[in-house]
Amino acid sequence: MTHRIAILGASGYTGAELVRLIATHPGMHIVALSADRKAGMAMAEVFPFLRHLDLPRLQKIDEIDFANVDLCFCALPHATTQEVVAKLPRNLKIVDLSADFRLRDPGEYEKWYGQPHTAVDLQAEAVYGLTEFYRDEIRSARLVAGTGCNAATGQFALRPLIAAACIDLDDILIDLKAGVSGAGRSLKEMLLHAELSGGTHTYSAGGKHRHLGEFDQEFSRIAGRPVRVQFTPHLLPMNRGILATVYVKGDAKIVHQVLEKAYESEPFLQVLPFGSLPSTRDIAGSNFCHLGVIGDRVPGRAVVVAVLDNLTKGSSGQAIQNANLMLGLDETTGLMLAPIFP
Amino acid sequence: MTHRIAILGASGYTGAELVRLIATHPGMHIVALSADRKAGMAMAEVFPFLRHLDLPRLQKIDEIDFANVDLCFCALPHATTQEVVAKLPRNLKIVDLSADFRLRDPGEYEKWYGQPHTAVDLQAEAVYGLTEFYRDEIRSARLVAGTGCNAATGQFALRPLIAAACIDLDDILIDLKAGVSGAGRSLKEMLLHAELSGGTHTYSAGGKHRHLGEFDQEFSRIAGRPVRVQFTPHLLPMNRGILATVYVKGDAKIVHQVLEKAYESEPFLQVLPFGSLPSTRDIAGSNFCHLGVIGDRVPGRAVVVAVLDNLTKGSSGQAIQNANLMLGLDETTGLMLAPIFP
Amino acid sequence: MTHRIAILGASGYTGAELVRLIATHPGMHIVALSADRKAGMAMAEVFPFLRHLDLPRLQKIDEIDFANVDLCFCALPHATTQEVVAKLPRNLKIVDLSADFRLRDPGEYEKWYGQPHTAVDLQAEAVYGLTEFYRDEIRSARLVAGTGCNAATGQFALRPLIAAACIDLDDILIDLKAGVSGAGRSLKEMLLHAELSGGTHTYSAGGKHRHLGEFDQEFSRIAGRPVRVQFTPHLLPMNRGILATVYVKGDAKIVHQVLEKAYESEPFLQVLPFGSLPSTRDIAGSNFCHLGVIGDRVPGRAVVVAVLDNLTKGSSGQAIQNANLMLGLDETTGLMLAPIFP
Amino acid sequence: MTHRIAILGASGYTGAELVRLIATHPGMHIVALSADRKAGMAMAEVFPFLRHLDLPRLQKIDEIDFANVDLCFCALPHATTQEVVAKLPRNLKIVDLSADFRLRDPGEYEKWYGQPHTAVDLQAEAVYGLTEFYRDEIRSARLVAGTGCNAATGQFALRPLIAAACIDLDDILIDLKAGVSGAGRSLKEMLLHAELSGGTHTYSAGGKHRHLGEFDQEFSRIAGRPVRVQFTPHLLPMNRGILATVYVKGDAKIVHQVLEKAYESEPFLQVLPFGSLPSTRDIAGSNFCHLGVIGDRVPGRAVVVAVLDNLTKGSSGQAIQNANLMLGLDETTGLMLAPIFP
Repeated sequence: MTHRIAILGASGYTGAELVRLIATHPGMHIVALSADRKAGMAMAEVFPFLRHLDLPRLQKIDEIDFANVDLCFCALPHATTQEVVAKLPRNLKIVDLSADFRLRDPGEYEKWYGQPHTAVDLQAEAVYGLTEFYRDEIRSARLVAGTGCNAATGQFALRPLIAAACIDLDDILIDLKAGVSGAGRSLKEMLLHAELSGGTHTYSAGGKHRHLGEFDQEFSRIAGRPVRVQFTPHLLPMNRGILATVYVKGDAKIVHQVLEKAYESEPFLQVLPFGSLPSTRDIAGSNFCHLGVIGDRVPGRAVVVAVLDNLTKGSSGQAIQNANLMLGLDETTGLMLAPIFP
Repeated sequence: MTHRIAILGASGYTGAELVRLIATHPGMHIVALSADRKAGMAMAEVFPFLRHLDLPRLQKIDEIDFANVDLCFCALPHATTQEVVAKLPRNLKIVDLSADFRLRDPGEYEKWYGQPHTAVDLQAEAVYGLTEFYRDEIRSARLVAGTGCNAATGQFALRPLIAAACIDLDDILIDLKAGVSGAGRSLKEMLLHAELSGGTHTYSAGGKHRHLGEFDQEFSRIAGRPVRVQFTPHLLPMNRGILATVYVKGDAKIVHQVLEKAYESEPFLQVLPFGSLPSTRDIAGSNFCHLGVIGDRVPGRAVVVAVLDNLTKGSSGQAIQNANLMLGLDETTGLMLAPIFP
Repeated sequence: MTHRIAILGASGYTGAELVRLIATHPGMHIVALSADRKAGMAMAEVFPFLRHLDLPRLQKIDEIDFANVDLCFCALPHATTQEVVAKLPRNLKIVDLSADFRLRDPGEYEKWYGQPHTAVDLQAEAVYGLTEFYRDEIRSARLVAGTGCNAATGQFALRPLIAAACIDLDDILIDLKAGVSGAGRSLKEMLLHAELSGGTHTYSAGGKHRHLGEFDQEFSRIAGRPVRVQFTPHLLPMNRGILATVYVKGDAKIVHQVLEKAYESEPFLQVLPFGSLPSTRDIAGSNFCHLGVIGDRVPGRAVVVAVLDNLTKGSSGQAIQNANLMLGLDETTGLMLAPIFP
Repeated sequence: MTHRIAILGASGYTGAELVRLIATHPGMHIVALSADRKAGMAMAEVFPFLRHLDLPRLQKIDEIDFANVDLCFCALPHATTQEVVAKLPRNLKIVDLSADFRLRDPGEYEKWYGQPHTAVDLQAEAVYGLTEFYRDEIRSARLVAGTGCNAATGQFALRPLIAAACIDLDDILIDLKAGVSGAGRSLKEMLLHAELSGGTHTYSAGGKHRHLGEFDQEFSRIAGRPVRVQFTPHLLPMNRGILATVYVKGDAKIVHQVLEKAYESEPFLQVLPFGSLPSTRDIAGSNFCHLGVIGDRVPGRAVVVAVLDNLTKGSSGQAIQNANLMLGLDETTGLMLAPIFP
């Protein structure tokens, strides 16, 4: 028996990635797909790469009969999500891929997203979806809030180090390089091939990127006191992948040992041998995160590099990993696809 | 029970693609990997994207105990393959990805590959591996010769049309655009990122490309008389994918009907509605081939466009499809992975 | 003394390319730039790559004092151009980069552009701007209509062959590969980096591309009877450059001789030795067009390959070449910039 | 009268870039080109993008008559350069683009390049070629040592700040993103299109990159005490361009003011308004360097971003800028070419 899945917001990249992964998932099948402006269209019209699949037509959300749905993925834009989720049946399991339920504190939400939260009770109920660190809560959660893709990358590099208190908490710097699919299928001049290919630039630099809200919440919680990292994202001329170069003050060998120990049983988090650093080309299309550590020539400083695919481990793959737990399936079900290279 | 697989030449792109696909194949497991110059290395050193897999170390071919192998994929360079295969146990099932056994006529082999064939008996024994057209022979074959990736693309567009005699056999033109991974992991100036990205050019133009040998053999066999197509390949700044624009003289609607009819039961060959043409972005990483037909404004002329991934449907995916048949498995086993997009 | 230049529609790629080229042109200086929706902005805000230049602010067209302008480039969208040009002073020299004045026959204009022409007298007055073939008319023209970038590429390959009657006029096929900047800075999903990079597909296939109007007009005029070519454009994951693979029936050596002879004194048209074919990487950012010819293995058939940069020789460079003639300057002034590679 | 120029090592990317720039330089003409392994070939065979130029054939170095040369550019590999330069006439003006004469201290040279220097007297004579900071010495120099491209980028961001003592010298971090042409036209697996496009990774991380020798030498000299920065380079899927994200501890507004003041008269160094950060797409193919400054949310920390084209401002453009000074020409001669975009 496979579980019945609905995907709201199936016309964006994370929605399509969910369909791609569920296509070979033995424990899930798709019973409903929504896309308000494209309701009535076949998925193959919106995403021809999915034409070999037998999929339901796109619907409006209120046309979906949720009585026949076991779990619903929400891949809707930020802010609209909270209204939609508030109207869904209270017994429906939900994995949300938007930013709406990531921050527990309504004040922080308003600070980073520029408007008050309209579903504060749901915000309190939601479990933060970084699977490797919230497994137990996720297993019994009704509503799981998928993390930001950049936020996930930085946390995989830093959480064990902060927990082990082996680095200086006041001097953490994340220089992040992100592929363009993280920005979604939106029509922005900056995202045109002619503008982006062959160039790179920062965005939301200087402490303005919203994923800082997640870093602040999570790192401060682990440390038991406020932690404020520096974070500069860059947009790169590639489609998939995030590489976070994380600069810390601490002993590099110890940093490596802490990460190796923390992730030794994790199926998706691979720590490379000391001194080896990973490449985004090696995780594309997969749910794996590769991490590496090297010491700097300046004594007492270390560099941690983490890579993952923003659409898979950074959003839709993570979402399925969480859904697996919520449905009582093995956490890795359907997610052991090898990366694609070249 | 899963079948025991060896891969010879595992350090190239087609070898790595075989490993990628077998990683989630329920009926195969890898027991041996060879790479002469890299013998002794772990596969993860040669291809870090495969580091999550538990794979045997690379060996020299003569270190492999073929008594424990059910089927062997050969992904070795052209010309060396025939010597290697000649020394393998006579009862071993072999799927060869090189060009060595594609041409039945030793004279044609020598003409296109510039040297006499050294294993003429094997050449005669080999079955041409274009699965959809040689299923029965492949099922009972011991040695299957995988097709050229360009040759496969052109044949999917043309074979049914030639068989149906609905086009002019003396005026067939294949203008082909190919991604760079088809050239392999070889160190050539032309294949450097700085040389290729942002540019395009022809190669082996004017009737010099070796895959013409396959076109000639197959098309002439179907037609019952010599057929000599025009074929101009172009190298494109992309990694995976082939797009063949095939110009024929014939009625476009009939051409479309013939293709639709020919492929209506094929799991991997998808014919688009009349007037729609496919894109390589929609088949990357998958075993699917999309085909489209449109009429030209010049009456009596049609354009057929076929796309596939050169590393998957064009070589390693095709090889597994053939191996599935040879091992008595369902032909699609392990191959229904959705394309990856974006 | 340098000539005073205005550019209407300076916020698009061809407008920016005009500014780039004029920046080091010794006989021109820019006195006015228009961009209706961005009026009031500095050019450096719209195109930061031009920030080192001292340029006038963007204005609305009706704010420009054309009494102080010697020559005006119009880089406005199709259809709006004819209205704008009709209102400009009758004594102003104009080089138009839109499609509005390329077709002499109002019926052909309406057929290809879907609406009646509103400035038929100007349409009759305009000289077709393919410099190498209309030099004398351009020198004395008031209004020159720049050609389509694809149309220019195909014509450089074919005009001398049609004039020399050395090929079959009823079997000409242009398979064209174009970079994405030809589509302009418009926000279309198809032009996003995530959609286009790593893939290729046809567009306006089957005889629907508007540049066919130019091919029909020009080739028929040269031949003295109707000529209808086949033309299939493809979009490639690169920014600049067009490669046209032109298939003709004729003797390849003669074809090569005819082209070599026709272009022997041309500064921008470079015919490669027989058998050599050009690459788009070798003309990027320049006003050069490289041409090559090879014979096919099918006797009596030849392949001509022409490459140029769509933004330079295909539009803005061509426009300046024409303006040079109209202003009595040497035709190559400011245009001998070497291509940029890699 | 134009100056007679020789280029040694003309078959690499920096050699070709020198030819590209000199092609439109009014004060220089090329009289000799060397490339040992390709001696006898025409430059158009090695670099078809230069085929429109009338250039001398490639020669071996000892075939060149240096009596007819006013200035010689050396674009030879590291280590071989010192032997070649030692044999050149003592009165010949030389701009070297290799690393051989960048470090004044023979011990530092040996430390970073792994072998003793064989021309220590020339090493002492050479002037460090960062034009904006060594103008007077360069003007009267016989031998100028071009800087590393990464080293130039970092220094443009940092030199004025160190000189002004407005940042913490013990906590400077350079996270650098570099295009692939900086690695030259060498055949390395890592530089293949299939390996690099669509991915990013670090190289020479952890304090191993040789350009650190230049940073150490120059920053320590300015500060009057040892300065040891952190430096992590990343390779990006683009051909031209370097973006250095430089993290400093200091007041961002003051940092911006210091840079603005330092570069207010510099023709090639453009400081953006406070809070604006530059993109590599805006300097490709040009001799410009764009710099921007933003404050971090963590008080007392600033981010400086500098971009330049590694082949132009980072090597060959810089070399010509230096040569202009050495030849008594205006420093900007031939170098005011606008960047190419898109």
